[in-house]
Amino acid sequence: MSGSIHSHFVQAVGAEHVLVDEQTLERAGTATFATTQRVAAVVRPLDRHEVQACLRIARRERMAVYPFSRGKNWGLGSRVPPRDGSVLLDLGRMDRIVGFDEEMAWVTVEPGVSFGQLYEFLRERRSRLFANSTGASPDASVVGNALERGDGTGPYGDRFQHVCALEVVLPTGECVHTGFGRFDGAPLAPLHRWGVGPTFDGLFSQSNLGVVTQMTLWLTPLLRSLSVVRFSVVEASRLPRLVDALRGLRQDGTLRSSIGLWNDYRVLSTRGQYPWHLTGGKTPLPRAVLDSIRHEWGGASWFGTTAIYAASAEQGRAHCAHVERTLAPLVDHLSIDERHGEPTSGHELFIEDDPAFMFLQGIPHKQSLKSVYWRKRMPPPEHPDPERDRCGVLWACPTLPFHGTDAAAAARIVERVLPAHGFEPLTAMVAQTERSIYLVPLIIYDRDIEGEDERAMQAHDALLAELVDQGYLPYRLGIQSMNALPSPGDDHGALLRRIKRALDPDDILAPGRYDFRDTWPEEDE
Amino acid sequence: MSGSIHSHFVQAVGAEHVLVDEQTLERAGTATFATTQRVAAVVRPLDRHEVQACLRIARRERMAVYPFSRGKNWGLGSRVPPRDGSVLLDLGRMDRIVGFDEEMAWVTVEPGVSFGQLYEFLRERRSRLFANSTGASPDASVVGNALERGDGTGPYGDRFQHVCALEVVLPTGECVHTGFGRFDGAPLAPLHRWGVGPTFDGLFSQSNLGVVTQMTLWLTPLLRSLSVVRFSVVEASRLPRLVDALRGLRQDGTLRSSIGLWNDYRVLSTRGQYPWHLTGGKTPLPRAVLDSIRHEWGGASWFGTTAIYAASAEQGRAHCAHVERTLAPLVDHLSIDERHGEPTSGHELFIEDDPAFMFLQGIPHKQSLKSVYWRKRMPPPEHPDPERDRCGVLWACPTLPFHGTDAAAAARIVERVLPAHGFEPLTAMVAQTERSIYLVPLIIYDRDIEGEDERAMQAHDALLAELVDQGYLPYRLGIQSMNALPSPGDDHGALLRRIKRALDPDDILAPGRYDFRDTWPEEDE
Repeated sequence: MSGSIHSHFVQAVGAEHVLVDEQTLERAGTATFATTQRVAAVVRPLDRHEVQACLRIARRERMAVYPFSRGKNWGLGSRVPPRDGSVLLDLGRMDRIVGFDEEMAWVTVEPGVSFGQLYEFLRERRSRLFANSTGASPDASVVGNALERGDGTGPYGDRFQHVCALEVVLPTGECVHTGFGRFDGAPLAPLHRWGVGPTFDGLFSQSNLGVVTQMTLWLTPLLRSLSVVRFSVVEASRLPRLVDALRGLRQDGTLRSSIGLWNDYRVLSTRGQYPWHLTGGKTPLPRAVLDSIRHEWGGASWFGTTAIYAASAEQGRAHCAHVERTLAPLVDHLSIDERHGEPTSGHELFIEDDPAFMFLQGIPHKQSLKSVYWRKRMPPPEHPDPERDRCGVLWACPTLPFHGTDAAAAARIVERVLPAHGFEPLTAMVAQTERSIYLVPLIIYDRDIEGEDERAMQAHDALLAELVDQGYLPYRLGIQSMNALPSPGDDHGALLRRIKRALDPDDILAPGRYDFRDTWPEEDE
Repeated sequence: MSGSIHSHFVQAVGAEHVLVDEQTLERAGTATFATTQRVAAVVRPLDRHEVQACLRIARRERMAVYPFSRGKNWGLGSRVPPRDGSVLLDLGRMDRIVGFDEEMAWVTVEPGVSFGQLYEFLRERRSRLFANSTGASPDASVVGNALERGDGTGPYGDRFQHVCALEVVLPTGECVHTGFGRFDGAPLAPLHRWGVGPTFDGLFSQSNLGVVTQMTLWLTPLLRSLSVVRFSVVEASRLPRLVDALRGLRQDGTLRSSIGLWNDYRVLSTRGQYPWHLTGGKTPLPRAVLDSIRHEWGGASWFGTTAIYAASAEQGRAHCAHVERTLAPLVDHLSIDERHGEPTSGHELFIEDDPAFMFLQGIPHKQSLKSVYWRKRMPPPEHPDPERDRCGVLWACPTLPFHGTDAAAAARIVERVLPAHGFEPLTAMVAQTERSIYLVPLIIYDRDIEGEDERAMQAHDALLAELVDQGYLPYRLGIQSMNALPSPGDDHGALLRRIKRALDPDDILAPGRYDFRDTWPEEDE
């Protein structure tokens, strides 16, 4: 980065927040898999005005800028830009909770606010509300997760469906608000998603069209009845009918929370590290060895959990009975852990004796994070950091129809392709809407092993290509998969090009990120 | 319209579908209130390709084109464009139901498909699914209602939240699909809203950025338990606590359907026509006369209804008990009409003995439509047609926080402003989300009375101005209110201008419709 550009950024955010030292740049360019992109600088604005100033500098200097919230997009590129030579715009200092309404159940946050921070904020206020958390890190950004259309537990699991009033800095430095947020001080802004006129929220999710500097997130009440449903099947052949029954429970309104399904490999990877002693140090873990282990857990091949939220004990019990009646004939094991407060006992549940219940009430945990040490020879440290510890994580994100035959077919693809490339088929499925499932195949490996980065990427690419070929298109992309989509059959490329050019005439904001420019037509008509 | 333009349209859609006769143009320019706009022609394309051809002609000829689905946007302008001299693009011939999946619960429709037609389609197939209906006409367009962000009953009451895979013809004639719809034949297109990358659905709702030629609508299962909750309060002072309790029932997951509240004036207007005999022919209806009538109904000033949908009798009963426990102390009358099928009795409920139950299962009715004859001296005909019969209807659409004090304050404004202008304060409130309410004040009058058109518009303008001044911003606009919004406090006008110019470089699609061009900056920077 030239000295003059550097001095412009220093003027905008202060010298101590323009980082160009080798160690910082090296660290900023490190993901959980092999990357080659060089970062030019890390610039850390304090507020929206500084973001505007940074984008105006970038525009004047024709300098690509890549914003990130807290950089925990593990398995998909962390904070590494798809292009070489970008300035990283680190929004981590913008970590204020700028609005909160207990009665109307919302909170407005900046991109630096983490799930853990939001939980602490609500807990300190003895709020009767919770924000659902991801299964990933408590340090992950709430805004970042919502914009990437990540998922959570609880009734608002489809997170991006339950946010509104985005404040966005456009690549030109202009600032807009979605919904009613454009009217100064509008009390309706945090309450109503659509506003009036065209709705722009979608433009700023999975995109490079603006930098979101604030977002309102709707919160869910802590209710008097919360039950955890756990089930499993021994034979994978039972999966299709089970999945279809779960779709029915979601569509009939009984289940309002997300539903998770994990295969035996994935469950093993969350319970401890790779059983080196059982395989003589070889990888991947043979099915026969896994079979010998899983017999200790009743031999199940697929495990599921979901939760039942209800306003009263009576409603909770009725839901549980319906779930039990529906699932019992289709599974080998079913347990429903019911916790019903009495109607007189007040709203606060905060069951603190069970990690599952805690998580379902918005308390983030680090369980999944530890599992990225699965293939490491070191134990997961007290404070896990996959980038520092060279944990390899590659994530593919295919979407499936919420249908038994598709769930089984996609699982079979993962279970065939990953072992063929030397990795365990660690797989989960998450259903948080009524018609689709997010498949979560993870490739976890040890970046310290020679050649493993390349093998893992080959496995990822082969897996994603085969899933896409079967119609299981990704719902989210990492920097390793921005070009993994098939060609559109319509003028989508032309539309995206028109919008990108209109909003970012100098192409300075995160070029290559979800803009599919390989599908753009050559010329405007 | 010049002869050469005429012949281009004839070439595109056929001579019999380019209408320029005086009677058609006169009829097309008639709304339920006074309008002055002249329509240049009505062009009726058969399919998406003809829509594309029409837009290309319009672009070449710099001719404004205004699309409408079935033209039933009563009270907000019907099919009349905001600008003079437009060609109407009548999408009514595009009335195909092009896709349907009973198992996954969706249907794909063209803009000409009406609520009545969709209901008949499902009924003929003995579907176990329903599409919720509006309280307006069975002849209204499903696509039009969704794009205007209209509301309905049932769990998918916020209609635009439950659609996906829009097919859109851009003003340039290009064609795009939202979500996964851009990938040819993607089975995921009707199942998952977001797709991958930026989400464009919102751009084409309440906008002039494209012509939606197809849309997938999600359907709801007919369940074994459906209950209708009816309640009322005598003193309006009870309204605030009632509204707050209803918010609680919505947020705790008990109520999944919309909640309606009607004031006494509005209820009277749906039960029959104006009681001329009690007022000696004078208007508006004095409060004292209304009071004498409402005492026949137990003296209530506000009436409410909602519905409880549940998968089993037990769940339904538990929900009803919770609703009863919550509402009973807050209302003067409460009745819950519970209908629970036995678990063995199959899915189809189709209770046919009660109009309320029928409506809650997606069967459209004409009840509200008849009420627009309230002030007419003729009785509502067998086939109501407010435009033909010169029924005056003006609708304002303010949004309220779902909060008791706001509901009461807004109702007081309506009850003060409309009578002062000579009209009854006919008012409903509809809550179909967890944090906001749609206020529905209606001005119903007789267009055959000299000067009434002007007085009604003055009343509308005064009412909307005062509501907006109090922060109760419209969630939807008619051609009479496109410029009723306050100025945005941000660069929203610049964003909308950038997008409109990028997508519609020649400004031919519905100019003035939800584009707020009075807020556009003069120059690009």
